Amino acid sequence: MQMMADGPVEPVGFDATAVADRGSSRRTNLGLILRLLRDHGARSRSQIASDTGLPKATVTSLITELVERGLVREGKVDRGKAIGRPSHEIEMDGRNICGVGLEVNADYISAVALDGHGTVVFETRAGVDVRGLSAEVAVGVLERVARQGLEAVRANGVEPIGMCVATPGVVDAVQGNVVFAPNIGWRDVPLAAMLRQRLTTSAPRLQVENDARLAAVAEHAEFAQRGVSELLLITGEVGVAGGIISNGRPLRGYAGLAGEIGHTRFGSSDQPCVCGRTGCWETVVGLSALLNRATSPGDPVRDPATDLEERLSELLQRAADGDQRARTALDEVAVNLGDGLAVLADILNPEIIVLGGYFAFFGDFFVPSVQQRLDSRVMTPALPGTTVTRSRLGFTAACRGGAQLALEAVLQDPSLVTAPAMAGNL
Amino acid sequence: MQMMADGPVEPVGFDATAVADRGSSRRTNLGLILRLLRDHGARSRSQIASDTGLPKATVTSLITELVERGLVREGKVDRGKAIGRPSHEIEMDGRNICGVGLEVNADYISAVALDGHGTVVFETRAGVDVRGLSAEVAVGVLERVARQGLEAVRANGVEPIGMCVATPGVVDAVQGNVVFAPNIGWRDVPLAAMLRQRLTTSAPRLQVENDARLAAVAEHAEFAQRGVSELLLITGEVGVAGGIISNGRPLRGYAGLAGEIGHTRFGSSDQPCVCGRTGCWETVVGLSALLNRATSPGDPVRDPATDLEERLSELLQRAADGDQRARTALDEVAVNLGDGLAVLADILNPEIIVLGGYFAFFGDFFVPSVQQRLDSRVMTPALPGTTVTRSRLGFTAACRGGAQLALEAVLQDPSLVTAPAMAGNL
Repeated sequence: MQMMADGPVEPVGFDATAVADRGSSRRTNLGLILRLLRDHGARSRSQIASDTGLPKATVTSLITELVERGLVREGKVDRGKAIGRPSHEIEMDGRNICGVGLEVNADYISAVALDGHGTVVFETRAGVDVRGLSAEVAVGVLERVARQGLEAVRANGVEPIGMCVATPGVVDAVQGNVVFAPNIGWRDVPLAAMLRQRLTTSAPRLQVENDARLAAVAEHAEFAQRGVSELLLITGEVGVAGGIISNGRPLRGYAGLAGEIGHTRFGSSDQPCVCGRTGCWETVVGLSALLNRATSPGDPVRDPATDLEERLSELLQRAADGDQRARTALDEVAVNLGDGLAVLADILNPEIIVLGGYFAFFGDFFVPSVQQRLDSRVMTPALPGTTVTRSRLGFTAACRGGAQLALEAVLQDPSLVTAPAMAGNL
Repeated sequence: MQMMADGPVEPVGFDATAVADRGSSRRTNLGLILRLLRDHGARSRSQIASDTGLPKATVTSLITELVERGLVREGKVDRGKAIGRPSHEIEMDGRNICGVGLEVNADYISAVALDGHGTVVFETRAGVDVRGLSAEVAVGVLERVARQGLEAVRANGVEPIGMCVATPGVVDAVQGNVVFAPNIGWRDVPLAAMLRQRLTTSAPRLQVENDARLAAVAEHAEFAQRGVSELLLITGEVGVAGGIISNGRPLRGYAGLAGEIGHTRFGSSDQPCVCGRTGCWETVVGLSALLNRATSPGDPVRDPATDLEERLSELLQRAADGDQRARTALDEVAVNLGDGLAVLADILNPEIIVLGGYFAFFGDFFVPSVQQRLDSRVMTPALPGTTVTRSRLGFTAACRGGAQLALEAVLQDPSLVTAPAMAGNL
């Protein structure tokens, strides 16, 4: 399989309308059929013609192309047909392709590959102190993780059709550059170009995107079958950030900064922030804010050398055991979390707010508290309100979102896959 | 011309992707051609085939249908063609159709009709104290204004292809109901059904939408040719509200509440609000907040019986003349406006923020102050920032946006126009 991996890659998954306006109607119709099969299951060519409004001859030609590209296949005989030659149902063939999500975070570099049906076909995580390395060395680790993933899935006969790297901070998704990511110490790192050069021709199409935005893509996938199209994800660890899904798509904003809310002032705090300002949301709901309130200097819960989940478990245990300082700290963070999310909900009116990152870990404390805060603000009880929930994806959310975004690009434009995935199977 | 005006109308202008996924590919392609002609001008059938990637025979068939629907026409002979029978360029025919925007506000009911090229072909405004009337009586006035508009444009040979009513507050756009609009005293008013029943069969397709959202649509149209797809409009008078354009489309949120920010808490004010809470943005940037700070009880500037623009002009004059109280009041509102807009910009990262409503009137004070506040917050100077500007549309913005939304629905799905606009002209 040859993939187009040269030059800047536009985040096509973001805007199906733009694709339709700009490019070939044939590509649009290939995507239309592929999404129909994914979302509504196998069906005959006649049924596809009827569902899409496309002429039967056009459907036949488009199906032939999708079969050639290895994206659909003939399945069982269509029993609904009473007369004439028996025909086969067409189904999406998602087992032979996958999207690969990669993530560079402060403490780890990881990969998740999802096949066309959303099944995890590869997963790995390398503990790395990225802040202690140069970007060049960190990208070297990323290359090894990526190669490991690409080789593993290919060994199982699954072809990676796209990759997407998640990083914290501000990302120029068109150029594939990390513009400013203070949590990993990066500024103006041409990540896509660096990784593409190292992987050379063995790599599929490559994108770079903000981690919270990709985590929101992954959380949205959990709710999309219920028809949710408006969702807000909040993630917190070193920094605090939001990912917004609106009209079913990630909201990027003008320069890719949408959702960068860690340094926004919600409420009336005057705490000094590392950014030099005061009252940033991060200073009252970030992980450091919680740990500093809940513990004294020297407490092992504050020790960054200990695994984060261990430290969070210890704090959770203390709160469950009635440690008043731990409980008060969690309560204070919950109030500030609720205040900020109330503002976000007023502006965006999401159906679902997902608490991710460390907020998910303390979901039993935060979810009811934030829900109550939002419910108390409702001015129009006749309308359905926002539901608060915790992420179930743990720290893999951004990686999963990257894999999904890579797959979504192909579902919008199947011609991105330029040759059969597995010619021997057809 | 027969229009489909029965039953709930979905706001199709909002989601071209959904249309493509759901319905006929032919309708999508009709819209594709119509938008191509609108956005990029007249061209030959061959050029349209090349631009869209559609087969020539399909283009010919689609053009025939668009001509029958009165939406395009043959123009001048295509001089680019060297051999064979001379062919005519195809151009959008926007002069024979229009969208009608209507607005119900606290002080007036108005209408604006825009033809397919965006030219105003009808405009009227009736001063009405809507809060002093029952919804039934107000809808009676709206009916008269609507009839006046429909008759006037039809008398000039222009067919109204859709209508959209703007109201303040929370709107159920699917059902066409005004759910909660405290500024005009409405709760659960089935506006679309009431107006449809009164206008009977003479009316085209009818939608209802929030006024700030529609004003944002109109402001976006002013910038769309420059490629702006991320825009925030703030409007203020009795209430304060925002309209958000993201990915080039209005952001509604789950229950249509997105942008309802008058009662959001930005900053640390503790002013009591009419809603029963404290610290709402409206209490520090609403028109009453400005007038109460700038004047004493009994001052004619506070008299609601006097025309608003007259009172605002008087206040502006005082500030220009050095009236310290007026200037201080404007400065205080500017600071609070900047604080709230900074939060909104952090979340949404718009390219353009448009100050509408009474904020536009004091644009000379507010624009530089808010711009400075936003510029001071930039953490990534390498990226382009948000530009603050004032609305040039005055109090017609919501009406214009309604007319544009009505037209946009047809540009997405030209089959909504079910018969030739002017059969005699073809």
